Amino acid sequence: MGSYEELLTFFEQNLEAQTFGHQPDELYAPIRYTVNLRGKRIRPILTLMACELFGGDKEEAVSQALAIEFFHNFTLIHDDIMDNAPIRRGLETVFKKWGSNIAILSGDTLFAMAYQYAQQARTEILPQTLSVFSKTAIEVCEGQQYDLNYEKDNHVSVDEYIEMIRLKTAVLFGASLKIGALVGGATKREADELYDFGINIGLGFQLKDDLLDAFGDEEVFGKMTGGDIISNKKTYLYLKAIEVADSKTREELTELYNTTDIPDKDKTARVKEIFSRLEINTAVNNKIDAYFDAGMKILQGIDINEENKQILIDIARRMIDREK
Amino acid sequence: MGSYEELLTFFEQNLEAQTFGHQPDELYAPIRYTVNLRGKRIRPILTLMACELFGGDKEEAVSQALAIEFFHNFTLIHDDIMDNAPIRRGLETVFKKWGSNIAILSGDTLFAMAYQYAQQARTEILPQTLSVFSKTAIEVCEGQQYDLNYEKDNHVSVDEYIEMIRLKTAVLFGASLKIGALVGGATKREADELYDFGINIGLGFQLKDDLLDAFGDEEVFGKMTGGDIISNKKTYLYLKAIEVADSKTREELTELYNTTDIPDKDKTARVKEIFSRLEINTAVNNKIDAYFDAGMKILQGIDINEENKQILIDIARRMIDREK
Repeated sequence: MGSYEELLTFFEQNLEAQTFGHQPDELYAPIRYTVNLRGKRIRPILTLMACELFGGDKEEAVSQALAIEFFHNFTLIHDDIMDNAPIRRGLETVFKKWGSNIAILSGDTLFAMAYQYAQQARTEILPQTLSVFSKTAIEVCEGQQYDLNYEKDNHVSVDEYIEMIRLKTAVLFGASLKIGALVGGATKREADELYDFGINIGLGFQLKDDLLDAFGDEEVFGKMTGGDIISNKKTYLYLKAIEVADSKTREELTELYNTTDIPDKDKTARVKEIFSRLEINTAVNNKIDAYFDAGMKILQGIDINEENKQILIDIARRMIDREK
Repeated sequence: MGSYEELLTFFEQNLEAQTFGHQPDELYAPIRYTVNLRGKRIRPILTLMACELFGGDKEEAVSQALAIEFFHNFTLIHDDIMDNAPIRRGLETVFKKWGSNIAILSGDTLFAMAYQYAQQARTEILPQTLSVFSKTAIEVCEGQQYDLNYEKDNHVSVDEYIEMIRLKTAVLFGASLKIGALVGGATKREADELYDFGINIGLGFQLKDDLLDAFGDEEVFGKMTGGDIISNKKTYLYLKAIEVADSKTREELTELYNTTDIPDKDKTARVKEIFSRLEINTAVNNKIDAYFDAGMKILQGIDINEENKQILIDIARRMIDREK
């Protein structure tokens, strides 16, 4: 089974071989631009790995890996419109660069293109893989809607937040693995177990994201930290702090999240000071570890080659131990 | 084979049996709202008809008819954002009623739901029908992008306009028929012929739309006419007028389409007067007839029951002879 680096090279080569050279250019230039923003490509690599894990040929999983990556890219294009986000991975977003109409429409096109790849699975498993793909797509939209709702809701619970990130982020990791597993010849049960592994790892991944957004090293992280705090995003850190704080601190934190009178820098510093005082860092890391352990437990139960299992554990670690 | 009215009832019953009762409500309320705006349902009915035309059971085509209708509804939700349109079928658009973020996201969800129905075709034909579905989805986006481009382009030719409406409107009629035909057991060749029939009828349908937008009876049409003229939309009427006008009239028309100084009512009246003077009405009707005849010719070449053929001819006539 290929390592992360080997599969990344393999995936990038396959991606580069795809053509997006159609007309009108107003539609396809933003698609090429987005697809070529070099992300970590974790999701498609999970698909390739899951296929190899069950003895499948990674070549057969390429179409599914591309489908997953294109779907993910489509969601980024549309999310950036909704979040009014000017920058992604250090570059202007499609929304900022071309305007919202083109961002809507090139996103829609990329979504349909993702299906053109998804529908290339062999006929025998096609209904199953497509069913996972569409269900996941809908859940990701539901997660994004909850995320938008929670911006205006002052009574979000930790459980509701976890359910939101499960939908918005974790299910796509689960689906990436499950679809790859099905291509590789896994039984339905094995594929489902791998899906559950992906959910746990995906939840850990998102909590790490929340943590880095507040406490990441800006040099390493490659972007400004504190964005979630400035935009009053009720992340796990905030919700956990509200949960464990005494009434005075809770009031202070609520006030900080409901005012626009404080300069961003001061606000970030004060919120981070509260998080530190309440040892939220530790709480989040414990939660991440719990998800990682739950994922490992599921993985241990699947009857596959130990060496290959280790490669999957390594990528899970990489998703969670990262500093950027 | 069922008539338009019979199949409409059948389709509406099946549509009503679908549930969209999921959470979050912010996402699904706009979907229910859009799907329940009673349109003509021409596209899904074409799917059902095409299935019956080749001896198939309409029950088997229901999932495909729903997929087509949901896809069409999704495009309306997103188009209304891009066109900044407040009203559709006499009611507020999703964009106007819920805002653009919810319109983007509920549109995306409906698109994925459309695929959930599309992927229910029997395995034997699934790769074929999905391939038509996705190709069509992409072409519709391309057509919409050309439409947006042409708003700002003063040098659109009649041919470019026809290609734009082929993509934006006609291919979905073609696909509705082709997918239904494949479900009904048509050969690839028969399905392709029915697709070409649909393209011609679809082009005629759109030209009729252009004509009604300028010259429709507001009482019957159910909405204000002149919208295309007011928004400087370079429809077939305008482009044909530019083509046949003498230089003085051409200049007058170009000026009218490039100024915001004239009250809407006066502008509409003056443009319509030019169209009438140039007998654009006749030119458009001739063009519509030519598409209808081309469609009929293709249909005549397909070896199917004459009585059923007549039902298809009737719906084609209905699409083109309509006054609303």
